[in-house]
Amino acid sequence: MSDATTPIAELRNAWAQFVREREWNQFHSPKNLVMALACEAAELMEHFLWIDNEPSRRLVEDPAVREQVADEIADVTGAVLALCNALDLDLSDCVRRKMAKNVLKYPVEKCRGRYRVEE
Amino acid sequence: MSDATTPIAELRNAWAQFVREREWNQFHSPKNLVMALACEAAELMEHFLWIDNEPSRRLVEDPAVREQVADEIADVTGAVLALCNALDLDLSDCVRRKMAKNVLKYPVEKCRGRYRVEE
Amino acid sequence: MSDATTPIAELRNAWAQFVREREWNQFHSPKNLVMALACEAAELMEHFLWIDNEPSRRLVEDPAVREQVADEIADVTGAVLALCNALDLDLSDCVRRKMAKNVLKYPVEKCRGRYRVEE
Amino acid sequence: MSDATTPIAELRNAWAQFVREREWNQFHSPKNLVMALACEAAELMEHFLWIDNEPSRRLVEDPAVREQVADEIADVTGAVLALCNALDLDLSDCVRRKMAKNVLKYPVEKCRGRYRVEE
Repeated sequence: MSDATTPIAELRNAWAQFVREREWNQFHSPKNLVMALACEAAELMEHFLWIDNEPSRRLVEDPAVREQVADEIADVTGAVLALCNALDLDLSDCVRRKMAKNVLKYPVEKCRGRYRVEE
Repeated sequence: MSDATTPIAELRNAWAQFVREREWNQFHSPKNLVMALACEAAELMEHFLWIDNEPSRRLVEDPAVREQVADEIADVTGAVLALCNALDLDLSDCVRRKMAKNVLKYPVEKCRGRYRVEE
Repeated sequence: MSDATTPIAELRNAWAQFVREREWNQFHSPKNLVMALACEAAELMEHFLWIDNEPSRRLVEDPAVREQVADEIADVTGAVLALCNALDLDLSDCVRRKMAKNVLKYPVEKCRGRYRVEE
Repeated sequence: MSDATTPIAELRNAWAQFVREREWNQFHSPKNLVMALACEAAELMEHFLWIDNEPSRRLVEDPAVREQVADEIADVTGAVLALCNALDLDLSDCVRRKMAKNVLKYPVEKCRGRYRVEE
């Protein structure tokens, strides 16, 4: 698992260089990047259309599908990283702060095994 | 910048624990998670609706908006991490492989300063 | 069923008047409207998150949920109508032409009971 | 303008027949259809990515682009109509009821020329 040793900044920097070499920062307004992110998310979603939840767990057992899905996830992630670069936001900081809010919003005892918090 | 020192696996593991404690793995089929991701991407997009590209670059100068946008980016990222956990995919590996394809697909000399590759 | 007697133009005109009275045409660029449409589609999708396909067929048996879903469908439709107004496109004409293409693209004998066309 | 004379039910019925002939009702759960709708909305959005609002108003002056955009709008509309068929919802009724709510939510004097209602 290379996630164990790859700092987020390494992927951010690789994307920043890719964008800079192509002089694409002019197109990378936050408005455009969130649109691009939504488009990529939809392309990922297309792979899981028309099937049920259980079969969706086995869809990526096919290596060709697995690679396509991995590529779409990478495209979504690329848009997120480009957005963090454009807005100068620290992604791990965003995630940690939101997770602390979520822990308060979804207390274990009120939502264990439920997808909606019990009133 | 905590992105400089935070390995991706650290955020993945934090999400995995959050989900496990709430027994939400039963809902975390890939189909449901890509839907959730698309929903979160749309919530992020809402903040940038009705304005132009240039003003969108300055939108997060307001600290309250900055925090809201940061939270939405965290929600999108949470869905991506949960999906990688559900599919047992290494995110940094996905990103690196896709970036290698993108370097071939978008050669610098053909797309510098252009948002579409010149034929 | 009021759909039996309501011409599409009637709904288009009602929306056009609503927008004109509020002087919102300035915000109704096609780019903004397609973003708004995607946001509304995601809000609709949220109602069907975390459940299976079969239960999703019964979700609107609850009158309160039915009204919420109906409202979201109306919002999506409003964005489509506003877009047709902004682009001066005849919606029924678009649908008829695309349906003629779909009949050729998805021949009955090749895709009966299948969600993907058999090669 | 054929919208002036085409009742919504005519398009709904044409779609219903197209789906029935292919035995696709089994895939047309509301959950799947809202996912399909969001995917189609994203495909439409892709045409307006990377450009500014003003140029987006002129994008469809090119007849080839105009046809592509018209096709995507038809696909979005097809998903809306299929969803109304699956849920047995009257679309014009949904739109009229929601518009009545919007008139109250967005009073002319408070939101003329503004994309957010003045507090």
